Amino acid sequence: MKKVVTFGEILLRLSTDRHLRFAQAESYKATYGGGEFNVAVSLVNYGMKAEFVTKVPNNELGNCAIHEMRKLDVDCQNVMKGGDRLGIYFLETGTSTRASNVIYDRANSSMSTLKKGEFDWKEILKDATWFHWSGITPALSETAAEACFEAIKVAHELGLTISTDLNYRSKLWNYGKQPKDVMPEMLKYSNIILGDIDTANFMLGLDKVDPDYQEVHTLPALYNEVFKLCPELKYMSTTLRYSVSASHQRIGGILYDGKEVFKAAVQEVTPVVDRVGSGDAFMGGLIYGLNEEPLDKQRALNFAVAACCLKHTIYGDYNLITKNEIEKLLDGDFTGKVSR
Amino acid sequence: MKKVVTFGEILLRLSTDRHLRFAQAESYKATYGGGEFNVAVSLVNYGMKAEFVTKVPNNELGNCAIHEMRKLDVDCQNVMKGGDRLGIYFLETGTSTRASNVIYDRANSSMSTLKKGEFDWKEILKDATWFHWSGITPALSETAAEACFEAIKVAHELGLTISTDLNYRSKLWNYGKQPKDVMPEMLKYSNIILGDIDTANFMLGLDKVDPDYQEVHTLPALYNEVFKLCPELKYMSTTLRYSVSASHQRIGGILYDGKEVFKAAVQEVTPVVDRVGSGDAFMGGLIYGLNEEPLDKQRALNFAVAACCLKHTIYGDYNLITKNEIEKLLDGDFTGKVSR
Amino acid sequence: MKKVVTFGEILLRLSTDRHLRFAQAESYKATYGGGEFNVAVSLVNYGMKAEFVTKVPNNELGNCAIHEMRKLDVDCQNVMKGGDRLGIYFLETGTSTRASNVIYDRANSSMSTLKKGEFDWKEILKDATWFHWSGITPALSETAAEACFEAIKVAHELGLTISTDLNYRSKLWNYGKQPKDVMPEMLKYSNIILGDIDTANFMLGLDKVDPDYQEVHTLPALYNEVFKLCPELKYMSTTLRYSVSASHQRIGGILYDGKEVFKAAVQEVTPVVDRVGSGDAFMGGLIYGLNEEPLDKQRALNFAVAACCLKHTIYGDYNLITKNEIEKLLDGDFTGKVSR
Amino acid sequence: MKKVVTFGEILLRLSTDRHLRFAQAESYKATYGGGEFNVAVSLVNYGMKAEFVTKVPNNELGNCAIHEMRKLDVDCQNVMKGGDRLGIYFLETGTSTRASNVIYDRANSSMSTLKKGEFDWKEILKDATWFHWSGITPALSETAAEACFEAIKVAHELGLTISTDLNYRSKLWNYGKQPKDVMPEMLKYSNIILGDIDTANFMLGLDKVDPDYQEVHTLPALYNEVFKLCPELKYMSTTLRYSVSASHQRIGGILYDGKEVFKAAVQEVTPVVDRVGSGDAFMGGLIYGLNEEPLDKQRALNFAVAACCLKHTIYGDYNLITKNEIEKLLDGDFTGKVSR
Amino acid sequence: MKKVVTFGEILLRLSTDRHLRFAQAESYKATYGGGEFNVAVSLVNYGMKAEFVTKVPNNELGNCAIHEMRKLDVDCQNVMKGGDRLGIYFLETGTSTRASNVIYDRANSSMSTLKKGEFDWKEILKDATWFHWSGITPALSETAAEACFEAIKVAHELGLTISTDLNYRSKLWNYGKQPKDVMPEMLKYSNIILGDIDTANFMLGLDKVDPDYQEVHTLPALYNEVFKLCPELKYMSTTLRYSVSASHQRIGGILYDGKEVFKAAVQEVTPVVDRVGSGDAFMGGLIYGLNEEPLDKQRALNFAVAACCLKHTIYGDYNLITKNEIEKLLDGDFTGKVSR
Amino acid sequence: MKKVVTFGEILLRLSTDRHLRFAQAESYKATYGGGEFNVAVSLVNYGMKAEFVTKVPNNELGNCAIHEMRKLDVDCQNVMKGGDRLGIYFLETGTSTRASNVIYDRANSSMSTLKKGEFDWKEILKDATWFHWSGITPALSETAAEACFEAIKVAHELGLTISTDLNYRSKLWNYGKQPKDVMPEMLKYSNIILGDIDTANFMLGLDKVDPDYQEVHTLPALYNEVFKLCPELKYMSTTLRYSVSASHQRIGGILYDGKEVFKAAVQEVTPVVDRVGSGDAFMGGLIYGLNEEPLDKQRALNFAVAACCLKHTIYGDYNLITKNEIEKLLDGDFTGKVSR
Repeated sequence: MKKVVTFGEILLRLSTDRHLRFAQAESYKATYGGGEFNVAVSLVNYGMKAEFVTKVPNNELGNCAIHEMRKLDVDCQNVMKGGDRLGIYFLETGTSTRASNVIYDRANSSMSTLKKGEFDWKEILKDATWFHWSGITPALSETAAEACFEAIKVAHELGLTISTDLNYRSKLWNYGKQPKDVMPEMLKYSNIILGDIDTANFMLGLDKVDPDYQEVHTLPALYNEVFKLCPELKYMSTTLRYSVSASHQRIGGILYDGKEVFKAAVQEVTPVVDRVGSGDAFMGGLIYGLNEEPLDKQRALNFAVAACCLKHTIYGDYNLITKNEIEKLLDGDFTGKVSR
Repeated sequence: MKKVVTFGEILLRLSTDRHLRFAQAESYKATYGGGEFNVAVSLVNYGMKAEFVTKVPNNELGNCAIHEMRKLDVDCQNVMKGGDRLGIYFLETGTSTRASNVIYDRANSSMSTLKKGEFDWKEILKDATWFHWSGITPALSETAAEACFEAIKVAHELGLTISTDLNYRSKLWNYGKQPKDVMPEMLKYSNIILGDIDTANFMLGLDKVDPDYQEVHTLPALYNEVFKLCPELKYMSTTLRYSVSASHQRIGGILYDGKEVFKAAVQEVTPVVDRVGSGDAFMGGLIYGLNEEPLDKQRALNFAVAACCLKHTIYGDYNLITKNEIEKLLDGDFTGKVSR
Repeated sequence: MKKVVTFGEILLRLSTDRHLRFAQAESYKATYGGGEFNVAVSLVNYGMKAEFVTKVPNNELGNCAIHEMRKLDVDCQNVMKGGDRLGIYFLETGTSTRASNVIYDRANSSMSTLKKGEFDWKEILKDATWFHWSGITPALSETAAEACFEAIKVAHELGLTISTDLNYRSKLWNYGKQPKDVMPEMLKYSNIILGDIDTANFMLGLDKVDPDYQEVHTLPALYNEVFKLCPELKYMSTTLRYSVSASHQRIGGILYDGKEVFKAAVQEVTPVVDRVGSGDAFMGGLIYGLNEEPLDKQRALNFAVAACCLKHTIYGDYNLITKNEIEKLLDGDFTGKVSR
Repeated sequence: MKKVVTFGEILLRLSTDRHLRFAQAESYKATYGGGEFNVAVSLVNYGMKAEFVTKVPNNELGNCAIHEMRKLDVDCQNVMKGGDRLGIYFLETGTSTRASNVIYDRANSSMSTLKKGEFDWKEILKDATWFHWSGITPALSETAAEACFEAIKVAHELGLTISTDLNYRSKLWNYGKQPKDVMPEMLKYSNIILGDIDTANFMLGLDKVDPDYQEVHTLPALYNEVFKLCPELKYMSTTLRYSVSASHQRIGGILYDGKEVFKAAVQEVTPVVDRVGSGDAFMGGLIYGLNEEPLDKQRALNFAVAACCLKHTIYGDYNLITKNEIEKLLDGDFTGKVSR
Repeated sequence: MKKVVTFGEILLRLSTDRHLRFAQAESYKATYGGGEFNVAVSLVNYGMKAEFVTKVPNNELGNCAIHEMRKLDVDCQNVMKGGDRLGIYFLETGTSTRASNVIYDRANSSMSTLKKGEFDWKEILKDATWFHWSGITPALSETAAEACFEAIKVAHELGLTISTDLNYRSKLWNYGKQPKDVMPEMLKYSNIILGDIDTANFMLGLDKVDPDYQEVHTLPALYNEVFKLCPELKYMSTTLRYSVSASHQRIGGILYDGKEVFKAAVQEVTPVVDRVGSGDAFMGGLIYGLNEEPLDKQRALNFAVAACCLKHTIYGDYNLITKNEIEKLLDGDFTGKVSR
Repeated sequence: MKKVVTFGEILLRLSTDRHLRFAQAESYKATYGGGEFNVAVSLVNYGMKAEFVTKVPNNELGNCAIHEMRKLDVDCQNVMKGGDRLGIYFLETGTSTRASNVIYDRANSSMSTLKKGEFDWKEILKDATWFHWSGITPALSETAAEACFEAIKVAHELGLTISTDLNYRSKLWNYGKQPKDVMPEMLKYSNIILGDIDTANFMLGLDKVDPDYQEVHTLPALYNEVFKLCPELKYMSTTLRYSVSASHQRIGGILYDGKEVFKAAVQEVTPVVDRVGSGDAFMGGLIYGLNEEPLDKQRALNFAVAACCLKHTIYGDYNLITKNEIEKLLDGDFTGKVSR
């Protein structure tokens, strides 16, 4: 079976309950998640084999993160223990006109103090066919960026498909470098990039900003600029998200293969239970879809959009949805009927 | 006062909280419900006298089910204790594009092992004017079907009005018989049947399937086929349910008296708190409405639809709504203003 | 800094969780709130100085109310301890077509047994520029009405701006007097009145009822009648509330300065977390807006409407929203995006 | 079957969870209880027939109290609806060296504003053999005392056995009379009085205070003084409670029949889950025991003590313990083994 | 590393919270456990490799049980999916003088309908050194007993050490056979038997009952009778449990190797958080201890007793305790100091 | 009124509920505490004026910490906002033989990155009579130690009484210095030191270790060595803690004034709700007691011990106990009776 390795940070998420504000919280729900881990969970749920590589502290919180991986059947045999702390983020989930808030408390985490050379990537990746990373790891610290780049290069040498979620987080990137200083070199190895065109341009240091990027007909020209800078690139993709409110989203998506633009129909999602990780759910759906045989690009995109929609109904960061449930949506059943 | 007797199974319902998936549940909310019990609760809430007849095990879970009946003022003087276990169902409540899931764990329950002759129906029904049963009981087991048929025949002999909710549950009917082997004989005694025309045709073994059954003008012809097979039939009725999503329903209803089709205006229900039991709420509203004097068929139907709508806002299986609250809706106040 | 003093009752609110009905409640969430207190909280959140004056019993519940004031940085230096009990209200929060219910249990509270002369208003108000009261206090009891009138007159003497929320509560006013017996004298000192025109007419004993009061062009004539009876009046204002359901509100607002009618665009609010106190949030926003320099009446109204909308997303009675969050809405960002 | 009627107030109890202090409570657990109601619940649990007579307001809180009675199978056919409010008490459960705290909020409750003549006692008591009241009702208000006395006299006329729990509550008795002004006349009809000798002397206006009342040999002389004032008295009884801490009690008991003193062995109870209602559990056990045939006074007392011990392990005011569970303790099994 | 395989049923445990009675439960905490699974968890926690073999239904509850195994790092590669339902048990946790109650609802579970031949034991056991089973599996059904015997014989052939916990459950054994009809043949292969001598005698059909079995000097004679019937037996062991109350246990233990009796000092455990699974914790500790090198029988027993004590402080069925924590107790530190 | 200023770190405490282990936690209770803050809370509860000085980040978690100070009426006018994060500690509360566990996550907190010169201590301390610090602040970082020393010297110059809790935390002191490198200079200004003699010797670099330090007669000689090194010292004090288990403590205390040893009687505390902060409760009680007039050293010590005992019954870090409640214990009432 094809095996995907994803690499990134896993965080303890502490979220207020029942849409309470931080100032009202007497307790926090504790779950674990992180962009690249969330992708691995999706893949396992769809029947693929996935491994997550990360570093967690050698304490009970690090162990809890590993429990979560094991419980979800994400291979964690190469997870390293060390460093000082598990990164944390506090989440206040918004609703209606009130936006969600995140307080990051992930500085000095085990993953952000990771250094090049700590993982034996040749060994780790030897049975894998796909490597996934995101723009979060290079945003953590200079050493984490280097450690990530090291993995990318090994993956490339070993001939793995490489996918990247740009995942720009403005509250990170605090170590003195900007995305455009770091990302262009790293993205040269990517075969698939997920992100809207503005973020891609920003991270690649392109000056172009698209005033109207959601118009399908303008996209190829813009995407082609990215293809020029990333010689291995085969696909660019992005969710199209129309935010009516914190509780009501309209979700579509685009996939471009260098020639043709595929576009998925927009779906209504209301109410939103948990929006965090919906991009990762899209990414997971897309990786799964692009691994199906025979390749059907439109269906792969539709699968990713449906996965993204369903993620909004799932509490926590990752997408606890089966392939069957997604396929039911692809077949047009949005009625939410009770099965009994 | 007129007294309605309903007969069926009461289950322990174990539902996940806050729209969590089964895989996320660390606890289950425990409530008690069942189609025919839910009807009895509705009737008591509207001021009628209602008795529920069932069999529960002689253990603390059986006692809890009886506590629930007593608390809600449903007469339980003839509830029998015996058998091995209380039936259970696990519920994962969906939201938005994600459907609810039910895991039935009701095999070998006290009610499904009930046998003909265990209840003294002549005694039980002697003060009643109405008997209600549903297609769930004959779906449980061959002996339960026989025990139900026995009750129906006594009710008929004693001149009670008999109402039936077809309630087809595909996950039941596991004992080797199909609805069409059992239901036609039993439905011959029904005066009122609740169910959509497709289900009615399926259960009666009619080959006709209506491609367009929600169109009022096509219904009389289809319903008349059912009337032919059910000589005592006076009314057929059905909810009209347009499922926008698991969180958004549009609810209407139809009542046909053999001559005229009554149709209630469609109401929006969003968000949905709990959809389970909304059909029972309709049934309860209809029985109540058809017992009001003077008889007003349109109003009876409207009452049933309003009851059904309000049920979607109530957590649990049965409808904790007063007659006044329904009548407020009938009078057109859907504004949800705070009363203070 | 300008300081606002608000005067009224603070209640223990006991509300059912998860939209449960009273009959289903095994526990009650405990919070504290009251119209005039809620206004003070809003003002502090926007950066103003606000003091709340009230009377609470000298027991642990009274202390809890004071803790809440302190926690929220509302000045409580003049809160008096005495009397027999803290007023309570029980709240069952509705949803969709089901309205919320309130059970008041506030008779004989410390505040309703307050008498004229207990507070030294000259001392209390000496550093204040604004005094706010509402129609709830005169509704509690004859002595509370007198105590309120006493405060109003001192505030007037000291030259404070006086604002009044009419806040008609039909379940109060049980002591033998009607609003029109009490309110006209008190409203003579008001500079700003919040309330719809029908309530204003009713409380002032005017016979006029507006059949079409939400039409902007008809308002000046109606408002002018109120201005005639209230010689100090400078502004009348009201929220415009279109209740689609208990879970879906459309919120607008009107401000009239005796010459010009300002109208704010209607905003959608769905789903509603907690509707209680949304009028107080409007009032707080308006007081804040009218204190900004330079005075911009349209912006003050818009600020009040945005504050009111956001309050619907906040659990509890008062509005835990910052000025920045409101201004983000004023700038047109209703998308509820996660900030990270 | 013998039927006991108990008469008194039922309260909404709002208690903090997990031994939190009032100042820490964000929610309150809601249960219903009251001394005389608790006695009725005990009797039903032991297989007797019991009716509770009270007055509750005609609102949802009153209905909830009635639901509780029905659920527990306590006959509530004569419960009256009316008056303004349900009495409330707030409970902070202590532990170890920290005592529990109670805040009463029961003034002006439906029961405390009850007046003589509202109940038709001849009708209510016609099928009863036993009437139970306690010193709480005459402590509520002058009219409640009169209404209670009226019931006592009818019970006496009809030849019922009358039992009384002295239940002195120092925070009540606020209406201008002291126990000794009211209780002596009422106690003249009592056949059984529960209370320690100091309380009995205090309520009867006797000057004697026993310095050493727990010494069995001194009791007959002291009790005989009470017997002189209460001509119908057949038994005095009291729990003997040695409080090691709020979490550790040692429970014994005494029964005196005018001739002989019976004393039950002291039992250890630790940890204490809920001490409230343990005296009522004793009273319920004693009434049950004295109704068993053949009469065995020592066993009746032992049954009462065991019931009292077990109550300390039950959350809430009343004793959810079966006769079998008590008898297991009487047979000496305190091991708390799991039955499986 | 040595690998232990344990074989038995895993159940969904639904337990009331905060010592509530079944009649008070509005929700149930859901955990998963079972005697032989609990043993496997202990071993993994102490650093050994352990696999659990069972059969669970192919539904979400079966999946949840597997999640639990994975999370705890218990090898579940041979867990079979099939059958109709996951066994359930309801638990009401007692306290002080009130005992815990269990309601078994495990009839017709996937494991109890398991048949001989479904597992390929030669394959499953090929890398194992130890096989553990208990008296629960043969108590479930005749086919489960046969399936268990099949596994035992293969384990014996392959030369594994075989341990057995007698685990007599009187509420099981409902299929027409008694322990003495089934167990003697099965126990012939056991190398280690855990259970008190009375249970051993009862299951082996021996008539001897020891009136004084906890006296060390009488044990060898009694144990030797068992050794005669079980030719492979090397050790008998038992916990010594003195139940002061449901909240207070005194725990010791005995190990007999056919020659010498080892006895561990009795430890106080109060308060008890969760007593279920404490015997399994002892068994797990003993297996671990007997696998340590060099063999130290007294220390192995002490380890088992300490593990058993600590289990009483852990919520749920299995023992979430590390080897270090047990060794701290063995070194005499019972002070419960905070480590910081 | 005398005013005490305390200086130190306030942490977000995230603790598991119901004695769950970290590996079982699905949520964490959030409270705020810290040794020196806890002392300030105690003093306010006893009627003194207390201010807490600290630095918290300028985010919502920092605001929550300030809310807590305000709610508890601890003066926070000089709390500084800045730095990167609020320190966190995770707590798993033990029970019986299982100890509590703490995971510190406080590196790089706002307080640990505080530098000398950030606070204007002359201004802050100008109205104070007492300054309290503990050994935690110098353990955080070199700059925090310097900042603390700066405050001490100003307090000394201004003539304040200075008290110090040695509070040795082995998991801190990670910045390259040991207590004996830092503390001796700082302790030279202390008038009162709280800590056992071993800790005092260790922190002062004394080689002496007392084999038997709890024997009163040996203490003066040992304490006198400390007095020699700390010229301003007037009192040394320590709790005497006999840990029976995590749930059962025996608490006494000693106070030495350079001449006389005072010893308080040992009190039983069982069960323990929350042991964290019990030393701070002792310290708070002692400061209060030594400020009472006329000075009664034995009573001051007794007050401190009683406060410490009662803290064990309070959830959270600080002592929500009134002066009255402590005095009730001093008067010998440990019975935990319900007050009603």
